[in-house]
Amino acid sequence: MTEDEQAIRRLVATWFEATKRGDLDGVLALMTDDVVFLLPGRSPMMGKSAFAAASRAQAAHGQPRFESESAIQEISVHGDWAWIWTRLSVSITAPGGQPVARSGHTLTILRKEGGRWLLARDANLLANA
Amino acid sequence: MTEDEQAIRRLVATWFEATKRGDLDGVLALMTDDVVFLLPGRSPMMGKSAFAAASRAQAAHGQPRFESESAIQEISVHGDWAWIWTRLSVSITAPGGQPVARSGHTLTILRKEGGRWLLARDANLLANA
Repeated sequence: MTEDEQAIRRLVATWFEATKRGDLDGVLALMTDDVVFLLPGRSPMMGKSAFAAASRAQAAHGQPRFESESAIQEISVHGDWAWIWTRLSVSITAPGGQPVARSGHTLTILRKEGGRWLLARDANLLANA
Repeated sequence: MTEDEQAIRRLVATWFEATKRGDLDGVLALMTDDVVFLLPGRSPMMGKSAFAAASRAQAAHGQPRFESESAIQEISVHGDWAWIWTRLSVSITAPGGQPVARSGHTLTILRKEGGRWLLARDANLLANA
Protein backbone atom coordinates (compact mmCIF):
# COMPACT_ATOMS: atom_id res chain seq x y z
CA MET A 1 0.00 0.00 0.00
CA THR A 2 1.40 3.43 -0.93
CA GLU A 3 1.77 6.30 1.52
CA ASP A 4 -1.12 8.12 -0.19
CA GLU A 5 -3.38 5.09 0.17
CA GLN A 6 -2.51 4.82 3.85
CA ALA A 7 -3.20 8.54 4.33
CA ILE A 8 -6.57 8.19 2.56
CA ARG A 9 -7.54 5.23 4.76
CA ARG A 10 -6.64 7.29 7.82
CA LEU A 11 -8.76 10.19 6.51
CA VAL A 12 -11.79 7.89 6.21
CA ALA A 13 -11.24 6.43 9.69
CA THR A 14 -10.73 9.90 11.20
CA TRP A 15 -13.91 11.15 9.51
CA PHE A 16 -16.06 8.48 11.16
CA GLU A 17 -14.32 8.81 14.55
CA ALA A 18 -14.88 12.59 14.57
CA THR A 19 -18.51 12.15 13.44
CA LYS A 20 -19.11 9.56 16.17
CA ARG A 21 -17.89 11.86 18.94
CA GLY A 22 -19.83 14.83 17.52
CA ASP A 23 -16.63 16.75 16.74
CA LEU A 24 -17.91 19.02 13.96
CA ASP A 25 -14.69 21.07 13.75
CA GLY A 26 -12.77 17.81 13.44
CA VAL A 27 -14.95 16.73 10.48
CA LEU A 28 -14.81 20.17 8.83
CA ALA A 29 -11.00 20.00 8.93
CA LEU A 30 -11.18 16.95 6.64
CA MET A 31 -12.94 18.62 3.69
CA THR A 32 -12.04 21.28 1.10
CA ASP A 33 -13.69 24.71 1.39
CA ASP A 34 -15.54 24.10 -1.90
CA VAL A 35 -16.70 20.57 -0.98
CA VAL A 36 -19.88 19.29 -2.64
CA PHE A 37 -22.11 16.56 -1.20
CA LEU A 38 -24.53 14.90 -3.61
CA LEU A 39 -27.52 13.00 -2.23
CA PRO A 40 -30.46 11.28 -3.96
CA GLY A 41 -33.58 13.44 -4.20
CA ARG A 42 -31.92 16.48 -2.67
CA SER A 43 -30.15 19.60 -3.86
CA PRO A 44 -26.37 19.44 -3.68
CA MET A 45 -24.95 20.61 -0.36
CA MET A 46 -22.16 22.97 -1.39
CA GLY A 47 -19.37 24.29 0.79
CA LYS A 48 -18.06 23.70 4.27
CA SER A 49 -20.49 26.21 5.80
CA ALA A 50 -23.53 24.37 4.38
CA PHE A 51 -22.24 21.12 5.89
CA ALA A 52 -21.69 22.87 9.24
CA ALA A 53 -25.20 24.36 9.23
CA ALA A 54 -26.81 20.98 8.41
CA SER A 55 -24.78 19.25 11.15
CA ARG A 56 -25.72 21.89 13.73
CA ALA A 57 -29.42 21.61 12.77
CA GLN A 58 -29.23 17.82 13.18
CA ALA A 59 -27.70 18.21 16.65
CA ALA A 60 -30.01 21.07 17.75
CA HIS A 61 -31.93 18.83 20.16
CA GLY A 62 -28.90 16.90 21.35
CA GLN A 63 -26.07 15.06 19.68
CA PRO A 64 -27.34 12.01 17.74
CA ARG A 65 -25.67 8.67 18.42
CA PHE A 66 -23.74 7.59 15.33
CA GLU A 67 -22.49 4.12 14.49
CA SER A 68 -20.86 3.17 11.19
CA GLU A 69 -19.14 0.35 9.40
CA SER A 70 -17.20 1.16 6.27
CA ALA A 71 -15.21 -0.92 3.82
CA ILE A 72 -13.19 0.80 1.12
CA GLN A 73 -13.71 -1.08 -2.15
CA GLU A 74 -11.24 0.87 -4.29
CA ILE A 75 -8.68 3.65 -3.95
CA SER A 76 -7.29 5.26 -7.08
CA VAL A 77 -4.64 8.00 -6.73
CA HIS A 78 -3.68 10.39 -9.57
CA GLY A 79 -1.20 12.99 -8.37
CA ASP A 80 -2.97 15.40 -6.04
CA TRP A 81 -6.36 13.87 -6.80
CA ALA A 82 -7.84 10.53 -5.82
CA TRP A 83 -11.17 8.80 -5.79
CA ILE A 84 -12.49 6.09 -3.53
CA TRP A 85 -15.47 3.78 -3.65
CA THR A 86 -16.72 2.77 -0.20
CA ARG A 87 -19.39 0.38 1.10
CA LEU A 88 -21.00 1.94 4.14
CA SER A 89 -23.61 1.19 6.80
CA VAL A 90 -24.62 3.83 9.32
CA SER A 91 -27.06 3.95 12.20
CA ILE A 92 -28.14 7.34 13.54
CA THR A 93 -30.18 7.67 16.72
CA ALA A 94 -31.55 11.08 17.71
CA PRO A 95 -31.87 11.62 21.47
CA GLY A 96 -34.99 9.74 22.61
CA GLY A 97 -35.56 8.43 19.06
CA GLN A 98 -35.32 5.11 17.29
CA PRO A 99 -32.17 4.18 15.32
CA VAL A 100 -32.37 4.92 11.60
CA ALA A 101 -30.21 2.50 9.63
CA ARG A 102 -28.95 3.29 6.14
CA SER A 103 -26.59 1.36 3.94
CA GLY A 104 -25.12 1.50 0.48
CA HIS A 105 -22.16 3.00 -1.29
CA THR A 106 -20.30 6.27 -1.67
CA LEU A 107 -18.11 7.53 -4.50
CA THR A 108 -15.78 10.24 -3.25
CA ILE A 109 -13.26 12.57 -4.88
CA LEU A 110 -10.32 13.60 -2.69
CA ARG A 111 -7.83 16.43 -3.17
CA LYS A 112 -4.37 16.80 -1.63
CA GLU A 113 -3.86 20.31 -0.25
CA GLY A 114 -0.65 21.25 1.56
CA GLY A 115 0.27 17.57 1.76
CA ARG A 116 -3.06 16.54 3.36
CA TRP A 117 -5.82 14.57 1.68
CA LEU A 118 -9.24 16.21 1.97
CA LEU A 119 -12.73 15.23 0.85
CA ALA A 120 -13.74 17.37 -2.17
CA ARG A 121 -16.82 15.77 -3.79
CA ASP A 122 -19.00 13.04 -2.34
CA ALA A 123 -21.85 11.07 -3.89
CA ASN A 124 -23.80 9.38 -1.09
CA LEU A 125 -26.01 6.56 -2.36
CA LEU A 126 -27.12 5.22 1.02
CA ALA A 127 -30.72 4.05 1.27
CA ASN A 128 -32.83 2.97 4.24
CA ALA A 129 -31.62 -0.47 5.30
CA MET B 1 -11.86 24.43 -23.19
CA THR B 2 -9.14 21.79 -23.51
CA GLU B 3 -9.25 18.96 -26.04
CA ASP B 4 -9.88 16.47 -23.23
CA GLU B 5 -12.83 18.50 -21.97
CA GLN B 6 -14.28 18.66 -25.46
CA ALA B 7 -13.83 14.89 -25.86
CA ILE B 8 -15.54 14.28 -22.51
CA ARG B 9 -18.49 16.50 -23.47
CA ARG B 10 -18.78 14.54 -26.73
CA LEU B 11 -18.71 11.26 -24.77
CA VAL B 12 -21.63 12.42 -22.61
CA ALA B 13 -23.62 13.60 -25.65
CA THR B 14 -22.90 10.38 -27.55
CA TRP B 15 -23.98 8.31 -24.51
CA PHE B 16 -27.42 9.92 -24.42
CA GLU B 17 -27.85 9.84 -28.21
CA ALA B 18 -27.01 6.11 -28.33
CA THR B 19 -29.31 5.43 -25.35
CA LYS B 20 -32.14 7.36 -27.01
CA ARG B 21 -31.96 5.33 -30.21
CA GLY B 22 -31.65 2.05 -28.28
CA ASP B 23 -28.15 1.40 -29.61
CA LEU B 24 -26.85 -0.87 -26.84
CA ASP B 25 -23.57 -1.69 -28.65
CA GLY B 26 -23.02 2.04 -29.10
CA VAL B 27 -23.43 2.63 -25.36
CA LEU B 28 -21.27 -0.37 -24.43
CA ALA B 29 -18.45 1.05 -26.58
CA LEU B 30 -18.37 4.10 -24.25
CA MET B 31 -17.52 2.25 -21.02
CA THR B 32 -14.53 0.35 -19.64
CA ASP B 33 -14.79 -3.44 -19.32
CA ASP B 34 -14.60 -3.14 -15.52
CA VAL B 35 -17.19 -0.34 -15.31
CA VAL B 36 -19.13 -0.03 -12.03
CA PHE B 37 -22.55 1.62 -11.72
CA LEU B 38 -23.62 2.62 -8.21
CA LEU B 39 -27.32 3.26 -7.52
CA PRO B 40 -29.18 4.07 -4.28
CA GLY B 41 -30.72 1.02 -2.61
CA ARG B 42 -29.28 -1.43 -5.10
CA SER B 43 -26.23 -3.64 -5.41
CA PRO B 44 -23.48 -2.23 -7.61
CA MET B 45 -23.82 -3.22 -11.27
CA MET B 46 -20.34 -4.37 -12.19
CA GLY B 47 -18.94 -4.89 -15.66
CA LYS B 48 -20.07 -4.28 -19.21
CA SER B 49 -21.92 -7.61 -19.40
CA ALA B 50 -24.08 -6.75 -16.35
CA PHE B 51 -25.01 -3.44 -18.00
CA ALA B 52 -25.85 -5.24 -21.25
CA ALA B 53 -28.02 -7.82 -19.46
CA ALA B 54 -29.93 -5.12 -17.55
CA SER B 55 -30.48 -3.11 -20.75
CA ARG B 56 -31.73 -6.17 -22.65
CA ALA B 57 -34.11 -7.04 -19.79
CA GLN B 58 -35.46 -3.48 -19.84
CA ALA B 59 -36.07 -3.69 -23.60
CA ALA B 60 -37.47 -7.27 -23.53
CA HIS B 61 -41.02 -6.05 -24.24
CA GLY B 62 -40.01 -3.33 -26.68
CA GLN B 63 -37.54 -0.48 -26.66
CA PRO B 64 -38.47 2.14 -24.04
CA ARG B 65 -38.68 5.74 -25.18
CA PHE B 66 -35.87 7.74 -23.57
CA GLU B 67 -35.61 11.50 -23.19
CA SER B 68 -32.89 13.27 -21.27
CA GLU B 69 -31.54 16.68 -20.45
CA SER B 70 -28.05 16.91 -18.99
CA ALA B 71 -25.88 19.78 -17.86
CA ILE B 72 -22.29 19.14 -16.90
CA GLN B 73 -21.52 21.06 -13.70
CA GLU B 74 -17.79 20.30 -13.49
CA ILE B 75 -15.10 18.52 -15.48
CA SER B 76 -11.77 17.79 -13.82
CA VAL B 77 -9.04 16.09 -15.86
CA HIS B 78 -5.93 14.48 -14.32
CA GLY B 79 -3.81 12.74 -16.93
CA ASP B 80 -5.64 9.65 -18.13
CA TRP B 81 -8.33 10.03 -15.47
CA ALA B 82 -11.10 12.54 -15.11
CA TRP B 83 -14.25 13.06 -13.13
CA ILE B 84 -17.41 14.91 -13.97
CA TRP B 85 -20.40 16.10 -12.01
CA THR B 86 -23.60 16.24 -14.07
CA ARG B 87 -27.14 17.44 -13.43
CA LEU B 88 -29.52 15.12 -15.23
CA SER B 89 -33.24 14.67 -15.92
CA VAL B 90 -34.50 11.58 -17.72
CA SER B 91 -37.92 10.34 -18.77
CA ILE B 92 -38.34 6.67 -19.63
CA THR B 93 -41.54 5.33 -21.18
CA ALA B 94 -41.97 1.58 -21.60
CA PRO B 95 -44.10 0.56 -24.60
CA GLY B 96 -47.75 1.18 -23.63
CA GLY B 97 -46.68 2.58 -20.24
CA GLN B 98 -46.63 5.96 -18.57
CA PRO B 99 -43.47 8.08 -18.57
CA VAL B 100 -41.32 7.73 -15.46
CA ALA B 101 -39.38 10.93 -14.76
CA ARG B 102 -36.25 10.98 -12.66
CA SER B 103 -33.88 13.81 -11.93
CA GLY B 104 -30.82 14.56 -9.88
CA HIS B 105 -27.08 14.33 -10.21
CA THR B 106 -24.35 11.92 -11.25
CA LEU B 107 -20.71 11.77 -10.23
CA THR B 108 -18.70 9.89 -12.83
CA ILE B 109 -15.09 8.72 -13.13
CA LEU B 110 -13.71 8.50 -16.65
CA ARG B 111 -10.59 6.77 -17.93
CA LYS B 112 -8.69 7.40 -21.14
CA GLU B 113 -7.85 4.15 -22.93
CA GLY B 114 -6.07 4.16 -26.28
CA GLY B 115 -6.74 7.88 -26.59
CA ARG B 116 -10.50 7.57 -25.98
CA TRP B 117 -12.35 8.66 -22.85
CA LEU B 118 -14.57 5.95 -21.39
CA LEU B 119 -16.95 5.81 -18.44
CA ALA B 120 -15.34 3.79 -15.60
CA ARG B 121 -17.35 4.43 -12.39
CA ASP B 122 -20.73 6.09 -12.12
CA ALA B 123 -22.70 7.15 -9.06
CA ASN B 124 -26.31 7.78 -10.13
CA LEU B 125 -28.25 9.81 -7.57
CA LEU B 126 -31.40 10.32 -9.62
CA ALA B 127 -34.68 10.19 -7.72
CA ASN B 128 -38.29 10.19 -8.89
CA ALA B 129 -39.10 13.69 -10.09
